[in-house]
Amino acid sequence: MARKLIKYNLMIPGPTPIPTRVLSAMNHDMIGHRGPLFSAVMKEVMESLRWAYETKNDVFVYPSSGTGGMEVAVVNMFSPGDKVIVLNIGAFGGRFVKICKAYGLDVNDVKFERGKAADPEVLKAELKKGPVKAVLMQHNETSTGVLNDVKTLAKVVRDNQPEALIIVDAVSGLMAAPLKTDEWDLDVVVSGSQKAFMTPPGIAAVAISARAWKANAVSKCPKHYWDLALMKEEAPKGHTYTTPPESLIFGLREGLRMLKEEGRENVFARHAANRDLVRAAARGLGLKLLADDSHASPAVTALFPPEGIDAEEVRKLMRDDFGVELAPGQADLKGKIFRIGHLGYVEALDIIGAFAALEVLFKRLGVKTNFGAGVKAAMELL
Amino acid sequence: MARKLIKYNLMIPGPTPIPTRVLSAMNHDMIGHRGPLFSAVMKEVMESLRWAYETKNDVFVYPSSGTGGMEVAVVNMFSPGDKVIVLNIGAFGGRFVKICKAYGLDVNDVKFERGKAADPEVLKAELKKGPVKAVLMQHNETSTGVLNDVKTLAKVVRDNQPEALIIVDAVSGLMAAPLKTDEWDLDVVVSGSQKAFMTPPGIAAVAISARAWKANAVSKCPKHYWDLALMKEEAPKGHTYTTPPESLIFGLREGLRMLKEEGRENVFARHAANRDLVRAAARGLGLKLLADDSHASPAVTALFPPEGIDAEEVRKLMRDDFGVELAPGQADLKGKIFRIGHLGYVEALDIIGAFAALEVLFKRLGVKTNFGAGVKAAMELL
Repeated sequence: MARKLIKYNLMIPGPTPIPTRVLSAMNHDMIGHRGPLFSAVMKEVMESLRWAYETKNDVFVYPSSGTGGMEVAVVNMFSPGDKVIVLNIGAFGGRFVKICKAYGLDVNDVKFERGKAADPEVLKAELKKGPVKAVLMQHNETSTGVLNDVKTLAKVVRDNQPEALIIVDAVSGLMAAPLKTDEWDLDVVVSGSQKAFMTPPGIAAVAISARAWKANAVSKCPKHYWDLALMKEEAPKGHTYTTPPESLIFGLREGLRMLKEEGRENVFARHAANRDLVRAAARGLGLKLLADDSHASPAVTALFPPEGIDAEEVRKLMRDDFGVELAPGQADLKGKIFRIGHLGYVEALDIIGAFAALEVLFKRLGVKTNFGAGVKAAMELL
Repeated sequence: MARKLIKYNLMIPGPTPIPTRVLSAMNHDMIGHRGPLFSAVMKEVMESLRWAYETKNDVFVYPSSGTGGMEVAVVNMFSPGDKVIVLNIGAFGGRFVKICKAYGLDVNDVKFERGKAADPEVLKAELKKGPVKAVLMQHNETSTGVLNDVKTLAKVVRDNQPEALIIVDAVSGLMAAPLKTDEWDLDVVVSGSQKAFMTPPGIAAVAISARAWKANAVSKCPKHYWDLALMKEEAPKGHTYTTPPESLIFGLREGLRMLKEEGRENVFARHAANRDLVRAAARGLGLKLLADDSHASPAVTALFPPEGIDAEEVRKLMRDDFGVELAPGQADLKGKIFRIGHLGYVEALDIIGAFAALEVLFKRLGVKTNFGAGVKAAMELL
């Protein structure tokens, strides 16, 4: 393509595009992180996170990517040898398994077919086999674009082993889809700044229930940086145990303010609409979707390229010819699928633009499609 | 004071003031962190860090505060029960002890009087007692404003136990004072973005020698997020194992460019001059310094307030009346000393301004001083 591109369209499931308001908020001088000015900022962030999590529990922030938040959950709740169930529906389920095994836990790795959600009946059967210390799961599995039914899965845990911990990686799901920490009785919930919060990566947030604090008190996994007890001493002062990533905290405060202004239900509706648009466009274009409608993610959608086309080639050409950055398949799905991120600072027209590019690309590649049908299907939903 | 202040003067040893160039560099859209655009940025950052470290070793970056970098060193080099010596000259030496103990190491906590550097003769005597796996030390101890003689300490290790690992926390020291990773044969060196690199907090960098990689291969401390082996797979591609803190990486790239433009020797001279100005002004004002001249830090200086004045009261009034943020004493020194940070984006006039405020404050508090003598002493050095 001869055209020289000057715009870049980020369509990956995190980091997501950043609103100018958030970028501007981060354009802030450093201030003393143990002084009153920063305390007030941090207290607002922790309070707004409680709003996002729908919880009265403690919510602490760490300088870390989302994976660090998953590690916070594991090292603070368990001791080597503890039995846990991981509901493994994709690469991030696999990551929970790796972290648990790294710390010597006795892991029941309950795998589900890629593209499917965790089946509550399977969980029930596993729980009947004997007591476990915890069940770990993803809210939204980023690698496959599948939203778990956390509410039902949590109820299955409570009905069968009332005191088992429920640990949820909601890094890519929180604020993209409903998650009611207190109402669903979730014990540890992890999120990250670079997803629906519309803030650059570098902050993990972790919510801790009263039941989780009890588990923490007897946990023997070694820890220092991630130690919740060290954070608990500092949090009431609006401090963190180590130096906080100030600019990202200023950004997160603004991202959370924007979400509150938009309104919780509107945020969820926007993400659901993004999901529906992507799926309608993909179907119009004749592309196969990895996840069924019943558990399709409002944050990210995994698609199979047309027969005979390599998914990595699609990503390369979309970047080179149209300036659209898509995400690859992860682990076993590398090269087989590509993913479109549609969470965070994303709306309908971004999605329609990306599909316009996909349609032109497939036409150039000689794929037989009903040219224009994908975009038209999405437009009909507007 | 009736005056309403609109400027804020950050004089703490990290985060330090951020140059507008670095802030502007961070004001950047997010891009795909596994794509070619970001790879190029990350590769430049890793190469510039090698320049800063004076090393050909691998240097990896983590989304983390500096303490996380210290934990990277511990969990990647050791197995439970390993014998190590920690040269403990302040709160961050104490932190190394805590991290090592958290992971089950057999720690010889060699404490030195607060305000003193680690004594090479004491280290030699400890090394004579039997083999250790490693010696851990601070380059610059932030809590006391003491610069260790890392070159001599490293030589003592090599002369007595050639294969022991030398692990250096250079978070507040790197680029504020010389540190020659390869020439001094240092195995793991940790730094942080928010110090002499003039970038906001949220990145820890870690250099790893060939000897350290051998230790890593047999290390049994549990790890996942900090696992160097996972980083090693990604680094040649300009990637990180988990999502990198993009905006901070853009900032760090610019901060490193500024340091290269200034020139290594000029950067060191600037910090040394800052140190000398602070000490001259303090002496002119009649204040007692915690550290002797022989090992005084070019990054931060710890001062005792005048007789009968509480250090925390000095900090509060400096903030409220003059907009100057100073750092408190840490651990045992809380309330007894205050600290002036003078690393990063700081020059002589910032220091003279802070001392002008201190002099006026002490006069108001009725302290007998030779009013103006502190500032004058500093001016004479200009």
